[in-house]
Amino acid sequence: MKKVSVTIKEIAKQLHVSKSTVSRALRDSSEISEDTKKKVIELAEKLHYYPNPIAISLLKNRTQTIGVIVPDIANRFYSSAIGGVEDIAYSRGYHTMIYQSHELLERELAASRHIASRRVDGLVVAISSQSENIDHFVQLQEQGIPVVFFDRVSEAMQTHKVRVDDYKGAFEATSHLIERGCRRIAHIAGPKPVSITRFRLEGYKDALKKYGIAFQEEWVLHSEITQAGGTERTYQLMALRERPDAIFGASDRITMGIHWALRQLGYRMPDDVAVVGFCDLAMSSLLDPPVSSVTQPSFEMGQQATSLLLDLIESKSTPAAFETRVLQSNLVINKSSLKEINL
Amino acid sequence: MKKVSVTIKEIAKQLHVSKSTVSRALRDSSEISEDTKKKVIELAEKLHYYPNPIAISLLKNRTQTIGVIVPDIANRFYSSAIGGVEDIAYSRGYHTMIYQSHELLERELAASRHIASRRVDGLVVAISSQSENIDHFVQLQEQGIPVVFFDRVSEAMQTHKVRVDDYKGAFEATSHLIERGCRRIAHIAGPKPVSITRFRLEGYKDALKKYGIAFQEEWVLHSEITQAGGTERTYQLMALRERPDAIFGASDRITMGIHWALRQLGYRMPDDVAVVGFCDLAMSSLLDPPVSSVTQPSFEMGQQATSLLLDLIESKSTPAAFETRVLQSNLVINKSSLKEINL
Repeated sequence: MKKVSVTIKEIAKQLHVSKSTVSRALRDSSEISEDTKKKVIELAEKLHYYPNPIAISLLKNRTQTIGVIVPDIANRFYSSAIGGVEDIAYSRGYHTMIYQSHELLERELAASRHIASRRVDGLVVAISSQSENIDHFVQLQEQGIPVVFFDRVSEAMQTHKVRVDDYKGAFEATSHLIERGCRRIAHIAGPKPVSITRFRLEGYKDALKKYGIAFQEEWVLHSEITQAGGTERTYQLMALRERPDAIFGASDRITMGIHWALRQLGYRMPDDVAVVGFCDLAMSSLLDPPVSSVTQPSFEMGQQATSLLLDLIESKSTPAAFETRVLQSNLVINKSSLKEINL
Repeated sequence: MKKVSVTIKEIAKQLHVSKSTVSRALRDSSEISEDTKKKVIELAEKLHYYPNPIAISLLKNRTQTIGVIVPDIANRFYSSAIGGVEDIAYSRGYHTMIYQSHELLERELAASRHIASRRVDGLVVAISSQSENIDHFVQLQEQGIPVVFFDRVSEAMQTHKVRVDDYKGAFEATSHLIERGCRRIAHIAGPKPVSITRFRLEGYKDALKKYGIAFQEEWVLHSEITQAGGTERTYQLMALRERPDAIFGASDRITMGIHWALRQLGYRMPDDVAVVGFCDLAMSSLLDPPVSSVTQPSFEMGQQATSLLLDLIESKSTPAAFETRVLQSNLVINKSSLKEINL
């Protein structure tokens, strides 16, 4: 199919003004009267004239577009965070382009290259679990495209970061299970390279320590962030000679897998095995039993990361220091962990 | 932040070749030796040189990028369909930019404008429920940017369309409920303007007719495609003097709301009220009771829509005729509709 293009010349001709007047009107120049600007913009819209983004970029050094890369848009934590990104971007006059990495470094690299060549103004990223190396993001930043991390952050790059207090969330979840009488508490953690995996694992370990419960290596298993991963690791845990009496899942996908496996295997929650998850469980109330969860302000994380990004884009200089914002999580207790306490 | 840009001149200088050699090497011209191409590409990558997309576009009239607009990425039907879009796009060397309309015409218009100005090569769309007018897509097509619809299609535009047999899916779901002994079957339908709402409603009505059951206006309610919508409409249905003994929900979001409301109100599924939904219920197996559902090949829909789109993009002429592909749905029966039949 052939592309039809309308030019500034065409608009100038129809309005009997000069090309430079049209061009300046479209850039909202103060030299042009409001009346003329209105006429030019109306005709441009009518003729479907879209200014060359590179030309605008040269003028304003802006595309009014930001990119967002997340591992998986079907994960409600990320779709909600994207809602927050779009909310701020839209209100400040920016478009949002969404990319998913599918947890693959290769896809993340492809998205980064695309973003570099399409010249977006900046990028909000939750790093893929495969990406131990984040040079591609460092390169974007060096090229003048700011990158802000949220949720999955990296120490390897100086920039703004927005995350929740994963340590505290995991500490509270584990403490809650201990307070309900659980003593053999397993943890199905996320992939090892991911920042949130480490923070959550530390919170789990420190809660055990606080209550004088010995940490046991075989009760911590790492899993992909999938329901199938949670199911497989639960089979493995329940097959242990000394079975856990509680499982703390590091994400909602993993926790769905735990729930499914325990029901399949015939265990009762919370009496046989108490369960606490991490992240928003949108359908938690429909599950039987409903699952306790450390919930995160995902929408707000997207909003804050985007505000920080747009401030970087709109400021003329690199900030004196980058900021790491740590938002609070909240433990929501449901039936899955409400074990009767024998006094 | 200032953008640093590397030019073809710089690459030419470092390699002691002409600018035109660099330029032709980057376009993979047959006039340049493989050895030179390799050197140019390696240096371009090292220097983070990204060719001007408009320049490429002028050369090839392509951006190797397609856009996809869906109402809601958090809806598993759409996230799975996007997986199918990305699968085909990636394998054929195209990038995918994802946009969500949030079921708002205004957002769909903003995404269309953005797509037009960023010059993607084509667009895959599931139309927002608010968009009775789809002139913005007609305009893109007229500008030479092909648009292929999937799931939510429109009669108002001649193009390729991929949808499932909504009529047949609804006919089978309703027939199944009648065969299990239900006689007062309600239908919570989607928003009126949406194509799939009409097809599903017709299937429901024709199944009633086939079994000689009178259609009753008050048993069909329209709802937003949200869990809250399904819940509210279920309250309304169960408040009727003559209560339904079955509810057929037009989407998975709506069906989650039905499930939630019935449990809240103390009804047993399927004995008091049998339930069948529409679309993939990823967590169906975790629900209590698991929900019967008309499932759709969402991933395949995304794949087929994208294949059709890329064929349009890569062909030099407009096809003689546009195609509408109707894929088959599949009724998966679960406990929520398995009512005991009294013989």
